[in-house]
Amino acid sequence: MTRTAWTLSDVERDEHVDSLHITAGEVGAAGDFSIRKRTLRGGLREGVEVVEVDNGLLRFTVVPTRGMGLWRVELGDLRVGWLSPVLGPVHPQFVPVAEPSGIGWLAGFDELLCRCGLESNGAPQFGDDGRLQYPLHGRIANLPAQRVEAAIDTAAHAIAVEGTVDEARLFGHKLRLHTTYLTQLDQPRLRIVDRVTNLSSEPSNMELLYHINFGPPLATPGARIVAPIETLAPRDMHSATDVARWSTLGPATAGLPEYAHFAELVADGEGRTRVMLVAADGQRGVSLQFNRHRLPAFTIWKSQRLPEDGYVTGLEPGTNYPNVKRFEQQQGRVPQLDPGQTLHFEIDLEVHPTAESVNAAAVDIANIARGVEPTIRHEPMPGWSDV
Amino acid sequence: MTRTAWTLSDVERDEHVDSLHITAGEVGAAGDFSIRKRTLRGGLREGVEVVEVDNGLLRFTVVPTRGMGLWRVELGDLRVGWLSPVLGPVHPQFVPVAEPSGIGWLAGFDELLCRCGLESNGAPQFGDDGRLQYPLHGRIANLPAQRVEAAIDTAAHAIAVEGTVDEARLFGHKLRLHTTYLTQLDQPRLRIVDRVTNLSSEPSNMELLYHINFGPPLATPGARIVAPIETLAPRDMHSATDVARWSTLGPATAGLPEYAHFAELVADGEGRTRVMLVAADGQRGVSLQFNRHRLPAFTIWKSQRLPEDGYVTGLEPGTNYPNVKRFEQQQGRVPQLDPGQTLHFEIDLEVHPTAESVNAAAVDIANIARGVEPTIRHEPMPGWSDV
Amino acid sequence: MTRTAWTLSDVERDEHVDSLHITAGEVGAAGDFSIRKRTLRGGLREGVEVVEVDNGLLRFTVVPTRGMGLWRVELGDLRVGWLSPVLGPVHPQFVPVAEPSGIGWLAGFDELLCRCGLESNGAPQFGDDGRLQYPLHGRIANLPAQRVEAAIDTAAHAIAVEGTVDEARLFGHKLRLHTTYLTQLDQPRLRIVDRVTNLSSEPSNMELLYHINFGPPLATPGARIVAPIETLAPRDMHSATDVARWSTLGPATAGLPEYAHFAELVADGEGRTRVMLVAADGQRGVSLQFNRHRLPAFTIWKSQRLPEDGYVTGLEPGTNYPNVKRFEQQQGRVPQLDPGQTLHFEIDLEVHPTAESVNAAAVDIANIARGVEPTIRHEPMPGWSDV
Repeated sequence: MTRTAWTLSDVERDEHVDSLHITAGEVGAAGDFSIRKRTLRGGLREGVEVVEVDNGLLRFTVVPTRGMGLWRVELGDLRVGWLSPVLGPVHPQFVPVAEPSGIGWLAGFDELLCRCGLESNGAPQFGDDGRLQYPLHGRIANLPAQRVEAAIDTAAHAIAVEGTVDEARLFGHKLRLHTTYLTQLDQPRLRIVDRVTNLSSEPSNMELLYHINFGPPLATPGARIVAPIETLAPRDMHSATDVARWSTLGPATAGLPEYAHFAELVADGEGRTRVMLVAADGQRGVSLQFNRHRLPAFTIWKSQRLPEDGYVTGLEPGTNYPNVKRFEQQQGRVPQLDPGQTLHFEIDLEVHPTAESVNAAAVDIANIARGVEPTIRHEPMPGWSDV
Repeated sequence: MTRTAWTLSDVERDEHVDSLHITAGEVGAAGDFSIRKRTLRGGLREGVEVVEVDNGLLRFTVVPTRGMGLWRVELGDLRVGWLSPVLGPVHPQFVPVAEPSGIGWLAGFDELLCRCGLESNGAPQFGDDGRLQYPLHGRIANLPAQRVEAAIDTAAHAIAVEGTVDEARLFGHKLRLHTTYLTQLDQPRLRIVDRVTNLSSEPSNMELLYHINFGPPLATPGARIVAPIETLAPRDMHSATDVARWSTLGPATAGLPEYAHFAELVADGEGRTRVMLVAADGQRGVSLQFNRHRLPAFTIWKSQRLPEDGYVTGLEPGTNYPNVKRFEQQQGRVPQLDPGQTLHFEIDLEVHPTAESVNAAAVDIANIARGVEPTIRHEPMPGWSDV
Repeated sequence: MTRTAWTLSDVERDEHVDSLHITAGEVGAAGDFSIRKRTLRGGLREGVEVVEVDNGLLRFTVVPTRGMGLWRVELGDLRVGWLSPVLGPVHPQFVPVAEPSGIGWLAGFDELLCRCGLESNGAPQFGDDGRLQYPLHGRIANLPAQRVEAAIDTAAHAIAVEGTVDEARLFGHKLRLHTTYLTQLDQPRLRIVDRVTNLSSEPSNMELLYHINFGPPLATPGARIVAPIETLAPRDMHSATDVARWSTLGPATAGLPEYAHFAELVADGEGRTRVMLVAADGQRGVSLQFNRHRLPAFTIWKSQRLPEDGYVTGLEPGTNYPNVKRFEQQQGRVPQLDPGQTLHFEIDLEVHPTAESVNAAAVDIANIARGVEPTIRHEPMPGWSDV
């Protein structure tokens, strides 16, 4: 038995660990890795529980209190994430997800990786009576994990942080997210393995989008997005003005509305696809790998305002495009789940700290693209955009 | 002086006890009873304060953080309560009672006994402008007690847990709930003594419904509801399809909408009435006694889905039927309170662990019914249902 | 260096102090002053952090958890503040600011000084679709400070409590309140120095109103408001029935709707103006000094119900009158902020424990008024009231 696991929280068993610090030495291993669980204090982060992992090279912070989101990743002095106008992580008690405007979710939006779902994601949907039906990007990011575990496998040289978040109500959806953050010691990457289960005895549906957000230093004007585009279209007419430059981050401009582009990506025979953000100097980047069969709808989001207003770009693999759920349902992009059914999702996030590493990923992406000529549409595409 | 009391919380005096464990020995008494106050940790229950009472036979958990609700009752290995799709108790910080939909309350609905009120209960009410006026089942279950006390009276062989919850706003209702959970040592029952006071110098009104919920093992298909019905009518046309079987729990059926029946009960000369849920095998049950003068409107609620979706029946004594408040006001079922006036409510909850105990309660209920022939209406009753 | 500072909380630096008690002796000073930081427990105040200052004469409580509000001030046995129907301070987790009604803010309204803003204050504003756009009195009072510091300057005989509260969202306003509560040892006054900064690179606007509220013993029937009125007008026709008695607190009357009067005050050459509330016996009072250039719109609020319903009067200096923001914008009363611009606001609050002190302040106010004859309008003034 080379795997040691620590239950950090388990409400069913009435167990909870306030703080924990596990180092290599404590598990009789060589190396310089650690797992630390603690609770943040003060301001909007009061009571936010975090699990900080250092695999010897890569450091990252998982936030059980915010739906097992991934706050930040660091490699050496390179910080991967973004600087939101709100300094988080923000405790859900301060996020009015149910605000009548539908956009209260923004009050807590601060993470590198924020899951949007599970009953819905995308734009807020209102009924004919004017009332909010689905808030922007759903509830999962503001629900705490009911169970959290950390584990080290010394033989596999691996660290795992697992968590379970339930988005469930009597008479409502009963969806369970089980997520595992997996990382190998001294490697510049981590894997996110998500299982979404319909706990109900009745059919259900779900939406899941990974809002993965990058600000400086990786995302600055001149940074490039590398992706094996099959087809790409702007979300709306404003975004259409950016579509010719979809792969380049533009200058920071005060008051510039966001751009969004929707895309289908080329994938290899097993469905694997990959996208990368490359810093303006070409020396650093971050890439994401995922399966196009599971996450067929890819969104590029560019909010290119000045840093204090959030200069940020999102690479967002999803089951759907972030339109109102009603539209996504009409287009058949909302996964259906049978009773008890589980859907699997995986994302590999890799930090590329050198030009060599960037170039290797670029070659991989080119291989995936197999010379497919991207179709870039200059206007929103009916069926993709609700315009 | 044989009564010893412990203040667990008192905001007016700036007093608070984090945890407390009182045993028989500590108060110089024989027996095996205890009172324990602690704070639950993790997930949706983070920060929920509970008072766990063991009277030597019956164990129960009071939740000051959730309006002094009663989470669960246990007798030996018999658990009385239900398994909600959301595993609580849920801290109010995670319950969006004010969600525009009006049904955010469901996100925290998990208890055996949940008070619905005090300004309103029942279905959410919306204004002509489409805006929520009264959320489903009101606010009291998601307000924390401002004062909590536990007491042991060794001469009276009694344990009490008291709490005060204020539902008050400038320009709004100013209602105070003072509740006492009373239990005799080694007895299979507890008494709930509630006082609702209008703290205002101005007339007020109020609604109060005890949402008392049972799931397996007591409530399973074939379980029976024993009640001295005077008149019973289905709430709506869907419930009308169940009215001939009102007293029997039906098979668990995926997707089956809830049934609700409204009733007036026969009571004895002092107003005492009683209802019982008997397990399918007739060997166990639970009964409720209350005063029909105080709680004249009795609702039977049956949500007969598969266990993972909540197989649950509610026996719900109330001041009113859980329709929108506007309708209940029109029907004269909303109690008016003079300035400073207090209304009293009592419910005795008894667990029946044997067929003998079940039968004795059945005889009592038959005596209350005095042979009155129940009037079972096959359609919703105007004046009772807002249909 | 005679100034010693303690960081009580700083989320940016990941620092937080749970409790702190600083006394004169600890900083090597004579006198009987102290600063105490602690966290309130129980009920609606669970988790509320407070900083209690005793300058040797005046005691006051600052509430970082509630937007750096000022809960109460005491001088000897004179308590300055009011008794709300809700006993606070109320933790924001229990205040549904985003309630569709727009008035959820009232659930937490309990302080002596509560800031209303920063994106908006005043009456809730709804869109044509019926949805809430701006909740009553805005969000700032229910946002926790991201940074808190206390300091003692032994040479200047001064104590300071500073805090920073951010009201910021991606795509929304990005306003920062930095407040300092300053007090001299053994003096019956404190100064509030506020800076509101537009953190954005884009122009913004803001509203700020100081809801400063007094109940018994200072505010009782017969208490007087002394103010150098230039022009005063009732907010609405109901308030018009009180306008002839604007400066006197009337009898407590059950069910009496609130009165509000809007005013412009005379100021001295530097813009300084002053208002005072004098107790019915003329022996005690409290005054506010501020700059009319910064806070040009002065509101008198009188809610004269019985004590249990809140007998309270508000003296409310603001950038604007508390109408819906839409109207205030039309009238040009909403300050515009350039990118990075900071606006400054100061209020001096002084307790007058004797008739002499009251009279001295009255003379000061008379000097400010310079014999200007107040214009008292008997009907709401177009341009001031949205009626």
